[in-house]
Amino acid sequence: MLSRNPQLNAHGELHHLLSIDGLPRAIVERILSTADSFINVAEREVKNVPLLRGRSVFNLFFENSTRTRTTFEIAARRLSADVFNLDINRSSAAKGESLLDTIDNLTAMQADTFVVRHASSGAPYLVARHVAPHVHVVNAGDGRHAHPTQGLLDMYTIRHYERDFTQLTVAIVGDILHSRVARSDIHALSILGVPEIRAVGPLTLLPAGLPEMGVRVCTRLDEGIRGADVIIMLRLQNERMSGALLPSAAEYFRNYGLTPEKLALAKPDAIVMHPGPMNRGVEIDSAVADGVQSVILPQVTFGIAVRMAVLSMVASSQRMH
Amino acid sequence: MLSRNPQLNAHGELHHLLSIDGLPRAIVERILSTADSFINVAEREVKNVPLLRGRSVFNLFFENSTRTRTTFEIAARRLSADVFNLDINRSSAAKGESLLDTIDNLTAMQADTFVVRHASSGAPYLVARHVAPHVHVVNAGDGRHAHPTQGLLDMYTIRHYERDFTQLTVAIVGDILHSRVARSDIHALSILGVPEIRAVGPLTLLPAGLPEMGVRVCTRLDEGIRGADVIIMLRLQNERMSGALLPSAAEYFRNYGLTPEKLALAKPDAIVMHPGPMNRGVEIDSAVADGVQSVILPQVTFGIAVRMAVLSMVASSQRMH
Amino acid sequence: MLSRNPQLNAHGELHHLLSIDGLPRAIVERILSTADSFINVAEREVKNVPLLRGRSVFNLFFENSTRTRTTFEIAARRLSADVFNLDINRSSAAKGESLLDTIDNLTAMQADTFVVRHASSGAPYLVARHVAPHVHVVNAGDGRHAHPTQGLLDMYTIRHYERDFTQLTVAIVGDILHSRVARSDIHALSILGVPEIRAVGPLTLLPAGLPEMGVRVCTRLDEGIRGADVIIMLRLQNERMSGALLPSAAEYFRNYGLTPEKLALAKPDAIVMHPGPMNRGVEIDSAVADGVQSVILPQVTFGIAVRMAVLSMVASSQRMH
Repeated sequence: MLSRNPQLNAHGELHHLLSIDGLPRAIVERILSTADSFINVAEREVKNVPLLRGRSVFNLFFENSTRTRTTFEIAARRLSADVFNLDINRSSAAKGESLLDTIDNLTAMQADTFVVRHASSGAPYLVARHVAPHVHVVNAGDGRHAHPTQGLLDMYTIRHYERDFTQLTVAIVGDILHSRVARSDIHALSILGVPEIRAVGPLTLLPAGLPEMGVRVCTRLDEGIRGADVIIMLRLQNERMSGALLPSAAEYFRNYGLTPEKLALAKPDAIVMHPGPMNRGVEIDSAVADGVQSVILPQVTFGIAVRMAVLSMVASSQRMH
Repeated sequence: MLSRNPQLNAHGELHHLLSIDGLPRAIVERILSTADSFINVAEREVKNVPLLRGRSVFNLFFENSTRTRTTFEIAARRLSADVFNLDINRSSAAKGESLLDTIDNLTAMQADTFVVRHASSGAPYLVARHVAPHVHVVNAGDGRHAHPTQGLLDMYTIRHYERDFTQLTVAIVGDILHSRVARSDIHALSILGVPEIRAVGPLTLLPAGLPEMGVRVCTRLDEGIRGADVIIMLRLQNERMSGALLPSAAEYFRNYGLTPEKLALAKPDAIVMHPGPMNRGVEIDSAVADGVQSVILPQVTFGIAVRMAVLSMVASSQRMH
Repeated sequence: MLSRNPQLNAHGELHHLLSIDGLPRAIVERILSTADSFINVAEREVKNVPLLRGRSVFNLFFENSTRTRTTFEIAARRLSADVFNLDINRSSAAKGESLLDTIDNLTAMQADTFVVRHASSGAPYLVARHVAPHVHVVNAGDGRHAHPTQGLLDMYTIRHYERDFTQLTVAIVGDILHSRVARSDIHALSILGVPEIRAVGPLTLLPAGLPEMGVRVCTRLDEGIRGADVIIMLRLQNERMSGALLPSAAEYFRNYGLTPEKLALAKPDAIVMHPGPMNRGVEIDSAVADGVQSVILPQVTFGIAVRMAVLSMVASSQRMH
């Protein structure tokens, strides 16, 4: 009998990673501790381990993202998997083949794991429901819905620098409305017991329903980051900068850009995070991005280890009969 | 002394695979039986064998085809070859370098095998005539001329599900005129002794010369598939659907689309094949594509094994002196 | 303490390869002799050596060049490195991320070596100054400035066919003004003690300052190649052929195209080189390109060995503390 959570198998093991929402706390913690073991691998001269030797990982990026694709490719190759990058914009999809026909075909080529990035929210769920029982799906970002490996690497980063999730104040600043990163972070922080999660941004970029998720809404940056332990800055998409939702990039920076002065309102040892790529001078001042409180580059390094953890955990989950 | 068949060396071994036309039956059968041995490899957890370790396979796709390119890449990597994908549209060719200069340069980079896809019929022959004696060429589709690995995987599929080629009726349905798959299938079926090969489609999509090849021409679908053991549906290219050759996609489906009702005219255990990607609702009804008689996805799986067979056979042919 | 030459570490070892200009003669000769050892590797059936196993080489091509990128990829994979190709035009750079932020991010993914191609002269220097001390940078062509691995493979080729650099006359023919290859060749030839270096081309395509570099300027082809031991033909960029600098491609060929008749003016055993891709009938006649004095294809083969030498030498330089 299958469990109701589509991400877990009947043994409660991680079979797909589609969203942080609904993951048991024990699974989230297991991913973070598995990632710990891979951090050491990355520091060795020979960075590869044979855990996925002979397995095929397909990077299916229906939406272009060299950065995320590269981190998944590095993670899979460090695990010794055979990695195939499919730029779907230029392939069968353009010939009118449906997403599920493409998946069926690649499964017939003996794919073991699909890493799926798609502009439509929910596309990885559709794929996960469709694939054969031995195939795994990892969501690499779907529409505005979720970006679970980014959320997990953010948790790994926080855990690395802070003591205890249950004592933290975390501020997420920027375009919460359009951000799958924000959504995944909020779910992960809730699961890990963070008592104060703040969403900070102009009203036009804050979605409805935040209070119901236990999130405190702050429309002023000073209120939002005062006393925070962790500040997660979001990227402002270029298309928002001069759109209907915002007056201008300069105006945005004046109100929500993180400068050293603003950062001084947070706890003295607060850390600053950003999923990248950064718009320096728009959402973040270079003095902060390159400052001592910034952990933006360690996030990237941890991201490889977290993705290795996810890929190896789903691959080692027991097959159902 | 070179044999007259440009695909065979003086020992009669497969040196290039350019077309099924002209291959001895023993070579075709040897490819199919070699593929058998690789099917088992694919079912193991570790899918790689070291047959081509240290050899370089260059995928030269002058015409875009993610699907075919991926199957060759998987096949070559399962054999432990070093695979290099060259998207020639974006490279030297755009700088005005000739095809043969490109080939010479890649050979100078120690290429061992070229997998060539080209919009011009005959391009792989041109390459095969030009390369050094130790270099192999595999045709991955040239113009309207041939797609021999597709033809071979189709034969593998038929042999897997049916008993005896010499007892079969095989119907190929659709745009025969523009199909290199149809051409390769007809040659392969003839070589393997299939007594009744039928080409089924509207007159505007049937080439001249079929009867001379021993093919029975049927312009009505019911006549074409009645009593057939194997039905090979061809993809209708989008550009034909509303062109001068056809009234419309809907009209085409009404006359030549394979529905469960039409399929009932074939033998009860007839199999349905398609080279993909499918146009559901144009040449094939979803109820057939996903039905119990469809072997479309096994074709894809067999395609990997057949391509492994071809790549390993050409690489192990004896060098001429 | 760092040495003043940004390419060398405090032990005088090659740490980055940015330009041939300023390299000690001993380093140039060490690269050529290291390449010798890899030529033999390429002739074995198994072409890979484990020197860079577990190391990550990132090909960062901000300017498209399938040919150069492929040669670096082959070289790195022959050394057993993990190679990642980043087509930066389509990635973060397009999202407005700065070059150095991209470099920082990839370094955080544990890149060991960056191979950088960029349209801006000096970009690889900028990267080299910025990266962490354990990271290496190899210039794969920057603007009009330098293409040091091409220069080195040209020296390897000359050394392979000629006896003694200190006895040679070398003519470089064509668009010297826009050619980073010419610039790298001139520096390398000077370092290796070539007594007569000639730059041959129309005045509009000759830069100022050549005599100061010890180069003899010749505006007539017959004067330029008379008595030469080595003739390096440059590619005429398509955009020059009908621009303000030249009347037409036909006119250029008449005056500067290398034909068998012109070649007869050089020494009888002179060799003809070209960095590719060639414009047959523009800068070089096919009878010369394919003639017995042409060493254009051996250049490509030697280029793999030279790039293996450079990648392995920088990777084995001692870390500074």
